[in-house]
Amino acid sequence: MLLVASADVTAPEKIVLSSAQHDLIVFSIVAAGFALLTHFLYNWASMGEVSSRYRPAVLASLCIAGVATVSYLLVFLKVDGGYDYSGGGYVPNPEALSSITSRYMDWAVTVPLLMAELLAVCTLVGRKLAGTRAVAMAAAFAMIVTGYLGDQVFREGESTFWLWLWWGISMACFVLIYVVLVPAVVTSVRSLPQDAGRGLGQAATVLLSVFFVYPIVYLIPIFFDGGWWTTTIHVSLSAADVIAKVGFGMLIHKVAKLRTAADVTAGEETHPEPVWVNSVHHSDGVQPVQRPLEELPRPRGDVH
Amino acid sequence: MLLVASADVTAPEKIVLSSAQHDLIVFSIVAAGFALLTHFLYNWASMGEVSSRYRPAVLASLCIAGVATVSYLLVFLKVDGGYDYSGGGYVPNPEALSSITSRYMDWAVTVPLLMAELLAVCTLVGRKLAGTRAVAMAAAFAMIVTGYLGDQVFREGESTFWLWLWWGISMACFVLIYVVLVPAVVTSVRSLPQDAGRGLGQAATVLLSVFFVYPIVYLIPIFFDGGWWTTTIHVSLSAADVIAKVGFGMLIHKVAKLRTAADVTAGEETHPEPVWVNSVHHSDGVQPVQRPLEELPRPRGDVH
Amino acid sequence: MLLVASADVTAPEKIVLSSAQHDLIVFSIVAAGFALLTHFLYNWASMGEVSSRYRPAVLASLCIAGVATVSYLLVFLKVDGGYDYSGGGYVPNPEALSSITSRYMDWAVTVPLLMAELLAVCTLVGRKLAGTRAVAMAAAFAMIVTGYLGDQVFREGESTFWLWLWWGISMACFVLIYVVLVPAVVTSVRSLPQDAGRGLGQAATVLLSVFFVYPIVYLIPIFFDGGWWTTTIHVSLSAADVIAKVGFGMLIHKVAKLRTAADVTAGEETHPEPVWVNSVHHSDGVQPVQRPLEELPRPRGDVH
Amino acid sequence: MLLVASADVTAPEKIVLSSAQHDLIVFSIVAAGFALLTHFLYNWASMGEVSSRYRPAVLASLCIAGVATVSYLLVFLKVDGGYDYSGGGYVPNPEALSSITSRYMDWAVTVPLLMAELLAVCTLVGRKLAGTRAVAMAAAFAMIVTGYLGDQVFREGESTFWLWLWWGISMACFVLIYVVLVPAVVTSVRSLPQDAGRGLGQAATVLLSVFFVYPIVYLIPIFFDGGWWTTTIHVSLSAADVIAKVGFGMLIHKVAKLRTAADVTAGEETHPEPVWVNSVHHSDGVQPVQRPLEELPRPRGDVH
Amino acid sequence: MLLVASADVTAPEKIVLSSAQHDLIVFSIVAAGFALLTHFLYNWASMGEVSSRYRPAVLASLCIAGVATVSYLLVFLKVDGGYDYSGGGYVPNPEALSSITSRYMDWAVTVPLLMAELLAVCTLVGRKLAGTRAVAMAAAFAMIVTGYLGDQVFREGESTFWLWLWWGISMACFVLIYVVLVPAVVTSVRSLPQDAGRGLGQAATVLLSVFFVYPIVYLIPIFFDGGWWTTTIHVSLSAADVIAKVGFGMLIHKVAKLRTAADVTAGEETHPEPVWVNSVHHSDGVQPVQRPLEELPRPRGDVH
Repeated sequence: MLLVASADVTAPEKIVLSSAQHDLIVFSIVAAGFALLTHFLYNWASMGEVSSRYRPAVLASLCIAGVATVSYLLVFLKVDGGYDYSGGGYVPNPEALSSITSRYMDWAVTVPLLMAELLAVCTLVGRKLAGTRAVAMAAAFAMIVTGYLGDQVFREGESTFWLWLWWGISMACFVLIYVVLVPAVVTSVRSLPQDAGRGLGQAATVLLSVFFVYPIVYLIPIFFDGGWWTTTIHVSLSAADVIAKVGFGMLIHKVAKLRTAADVTAGEETHPEPVWVNSVHHSDGVQPVQRPLEELPRPRGDVH
Repeated sequence: MLLVASADVTAPEKIVLSSAQHDLIVFSIVAAGFALLTHFLYNWASMGEVSSRYRPAVLASLCIAGVATVSYLLVFLKVDGGYDYSGGGYVPNPEALSSITSRYMDWAVTVPLLMAELLAVCTLVGRKLAGTRAVAMAAAFAMIVTGYLGDQVFREGESTFWLWLWWGISMACFVLIYVVLVPAVVTSVRSLPQDAGRGLGQAATVLLSVFFVYPIVYLIPIFFDGGWWTTTIHVSLSAADVIAKVGFGMLIHKVAKLRTAADVTAGEETHPEPVWVNSVHHSDGVQPVQRPLEELPRPRGDVH
Repeated sequence: MLLVASADVTAPEKIVLSSAQHDLIVFSIVAAGFALLTHFLYNWASMGEVSSRYRPAVLASLCIAGVATVSYLLVFLKVDGGYDYSGGGYVPNPEALSSITSRYMDWAVTVPLLMAELLAVCTLVGRKLAGTRAVAMAAAFAMIVTGYLGDQVFREGESTFWLWLWWGISMACFVLIYVVLVPAVVTSVRSLPQDAGRGLGQAATVLLSVFFVYPIVYLIPIFFDGGWWTTTIHVSLSAADVIAKVGFGMLIHKVAKLRTAADVTAGEETHPEPVWVNSVHHSDGVQPVQRPLEELPRPRGDVH
Repeated sequence: MLLVASADVTAPEKIVLSSAQHDLIVFSIVAAGFALLTHFLYNWASMGEVSSRYRPAVLASLCIAGVATVSYLLVFLKVDGGYDYSGGGYVPNPEALSSITSRYMDWAVTVPLLMAELLAVCTLVGRKLAGTRAVAMAAAFAMIVTGYLGDQVFREGESTFWLWLWWGISMACFVLIYVVLVPAVVTSVRSLPQDAGRGLGQAATVLLSVFFVYPIVYLIPIFFDGGWWTTTIHVSLSAADVIAKVGFGMLIHKVAKLRTAADVTAGEETHPEPVWVNSVHHSDGVQPVQRPLEELPRPRGDVH
Repeated sequence: MLLVASADVTAPEKIVLSSAQHDLIVFSIVAAGFALLTHFLYNWASMGEVSSRYRPAVLASLCIAGVATVSYLLVFLKVDGGYDYSGGGYVPNPEALSSITSRYMDWAVTVPLLMAELLAVCTLVGRKLAGTRAVAMAAAFAMIVTGYLGDQVFREGESTFWLWLWWGISMACFVLIYVVLVPAVVTSVRSLPQDAGRGLGQAATVLLSVFFVYPIVYLIPIFFDGGWWTTTIHVSLSAADVIAKVGFGMLIHKVAKLRTAADVTAGEETHPEPVWVNSVHHSDGVQPVQRPLEELPRPRGDVH
């Protein structure tokens, strides 16, 4: 076999796959990619449903979905081209070497954005919001980069020592994220109207629960190897990505709509169209005021 | 021949095709892909014709068309690269192995969305809507995944036993979908205005009829094999996809427009432009109210 | 030569081309593809110039241009990869086999849409419109599929008998289209305002004239073969496609704008911006009425 | 060398390039492609800054930029794949044969559109505008096609006789363009407000000056050959394209904005947002009138 | 090794990379590309948050992000295809030759646009703005082109003499940029409202600081070579690009929103939606005046 293990751990990308394992991996990657494409189109086309105040949440979701869709295309191409069919099985070639770890580039951008998405519908404002967001995004970025160093860079992810060391460092960032986010969410849930608060609680629960999948999957190669474990890694990561991006994103989108409707109903906000959730009417469209005619300063003058 | 059958059923992807068979398959795939691209562009560009209440239907249709268009590109590439021209015929190579089953990744995302599309113009609201939609989407997803397990994963879809077993499990989900959807549709048709109700009835009939094509096509390899059967599978699935996505989608779009017009005419909804169907006027454009000047709270204050 | 004729007609895709012939073919395909891309961008970006009543015409034009652009990319790739440069000439390989007939997949979708585009600015309304459109679109689809069967599927388009037989069947659909469209257009031209009527007449004349190119080109291989005839086929089809899609589409777009302006001026329609054609003002922008404040039903109530 | 000259002129695509020459060519193509992509994005995103009257200018610019961007991608691919690195130099293969002349397909579409772009902000109206535009566009198209015949088709562009003959014919169209455009521009500059007139004059001067680059570059192979001349051709054409499309387009865009502002200020036009050029205010936003309530005909009636 | 150094400096593209080095390079390129894609989507989708006066800043940012995203795709393809896996390391092939310098084409377009982006939110107006912008953009373009000549064209970037000479010329342009920009920024910061001024100061500081990375990285090959230095070059340039384009762009976007809000609050501008920054309200939406009914000139008349 061309791709030999270089240390005490066998990288899961170097395992020969059976046809069934290969087909499950491809299914999970392509279906997850389609789900992310769907989320991208959804966010793009429904952006106007949320008022400008909560738009950062939808913008984050849009960017997350866009990057992840492209990333899954890349992962698909690496898997599609990285295995050669031979006698009913699939043998990895050098292209397969990054078929799992090429997800980290996606995460380096999207996990920080998930932080921004969540905080955009919380009740923090101004500098408090900017500061909390900066810490959470920096921790998320560091968590992914250190994870990549362990999983791919140091001894090609085949040394137990380095895998554990970087796992530990990455987990420190992981803990920091929870320390920062949980209080912000709890405070917000309490002060928001009931339906928006419940939605926010659900969204945060989904995100902060599914995040545990990643450090566990990271450790799999230390303890296990074989085709089914490689399959488990791919399927778990694909499912977790869909839940953390699409599922979470849909819940946040609903919270953003409910908060928009609450602001409009309270007379604090204008919004060009009615807000409906599940065919239930939450607010009417309200147009901004028209500029008063007497205020017109007409500073017209062609100075160039 | 490189690709030998591994069990008691010959996978239709392993059959050598005549030139005529190959050309019909390519025609059906590319023409269906173009029809889906058309549907995608149509939904995208006409999204504003439907009020925000029924927008989920158009968003679902847009996502379905987008995913299916990309999926057909993938199927086309697998067929185009999966057969080698040789002496007037087309001999499959390993790339052809997933030329049929790569449709399942598309369905895993789009069939659940079809459920959401249909329910978005029914009369269910609130939790009732959310619950019904969740059940229908979950059943649809399970139906596709179990179908994939039988058709591709277990013994590469070449074992009569596993094909039947998974077909049965998948059909249980199939039945559940009908159990959930039919009452919702019947109730809606009765309570909607005549033209919208008739349109909804037509749409549901089209969808729930064409769905029968898929389990029948699934069973073909158990009973038949040969180039014309492979051709039949490709052509049937392409035609069924176009009917279930484009045909159904156009009917739902019409229902969404008619319901928008009815809401506007009843004074319950604002909508920025007139609604016309087949050059018949259904409602005028109505703008939202303008924000009252005295209500302005002006909470301006730069707190960061 | 690898690609031998299998019957009494030599398929034009199997002819060795001189450098000049090859360059003219590539020029006609790429330039036509660019013209179609232009038409796609034009329709997309100017969609708002037409009121919702005539939007189906622009939507059809947009979809036609989108599909045809992708189709020309495919034709270009087949021609670019389908000929090997050898000693100053270009020798076809198996990829060239569908370099001409891969246009049929495009037509199967776009020719029916051309019917819809034309009828959307005629004066037919309601069921009369829906019925006429259904017949014309079905006939157009049948015309293309039967043409494909003769040109490509039956004996690979190399049998005089099958070529003539399918040509005859296809021509029956061709005649049916004229029987359905001509009365609809004549009636419309008479009842429309002068400028819109003249535009519609021009558009229909362009479309129904250029349609004659296709059955004539179809018959060329029966009577002639050689590099210049292959070139003639490619150049004629490219030119005809541009005229039937771009030229026709621009004329229909103008009719749709003129009819929009007429509706607005007559006080029957609102439209958010003025309509100008060739720098001549045809109507002012008119906003919809604002929702009366007393009508507000406020059915707000969070039932989920 | 594989690619031998077939006549008395050596096609510049057949010359072996040094590394420095190759790198300059690639730089000029990719940088020009990026500039055109930028122009495409700019036009797309700023389309709303111009009123519907002058929108044809922006639409033309958008289409020009879109087609040219795709064309430069094609030219890049032909150059990138058309030369094989060998011992520090780059040796052309058959793909390089159209690395220069594949620009003509772009020009066949974009040069006629440049005519439309210029005339859309001149003061011609109605039939006068339509007629002038038709002549200029037809002459531009003929100019490009005849140029292509000489440069590529007749004896592969390697015969002095044919090169000169087609150059002459093409130049006749070139002259015709100037005969048609110059009076239209001069008249417009005189009758427009000062700033718009000056802008139009600059735009026309840029376009009609840079056009002289093309016939001169066309003649280079008759007199010179060698790697630096091939480099000169590529760099000159890339620079000329950027000036004629991006530079000219930006100037026209400014004229269109100034004319929009003038129309709004004169009370002749509505436009939804203020017009600013270089941070100087030129006009306020003005909304269209609202539809009078008494005029409502309500022709609602579901006739299908 | 195929790719031998041709002079006294070894081009960093010709160095064999270890697996860890290769993986870090790919990570930095793909993650930076994703960040730029995110910035592109963000600018596109949030363009309406800024009034037409400051839109040139967002348009510049959009174009920068679009070009840079495509450029990073190109860089990725060159790196992905430019190294062959062999015995645990990655050996460069001819495709790798431009894996670093292909960034210059991007910069030739985007660095001038960064100048325009910064100046669009400064307080310069009219001819002063146009003049300053022209000088800064020309200097930026010259800086990049001369850098490319030294780094790639003259002796393939492997001559100390030419590297230093072009570095010096390029640095002259570098200095000119600072001479032009710094006074414009300082003046603006002083005359703007406090929050907008602070934001502008931060943005300019970020940009003008990170610019120092480029000339330093340029000089690395003169003093050092080896895999880790090649890695340093790639990682530094990727990080610097993200900071100069995404980080800077986000700050400018915030300044543009704050200035929009200030103009609206001062009654000098209309803007269709409220402006919020970090969930802090800065201005309400204000609609333009409606066209007075008596002013209607109705110059309608069909003159063609």
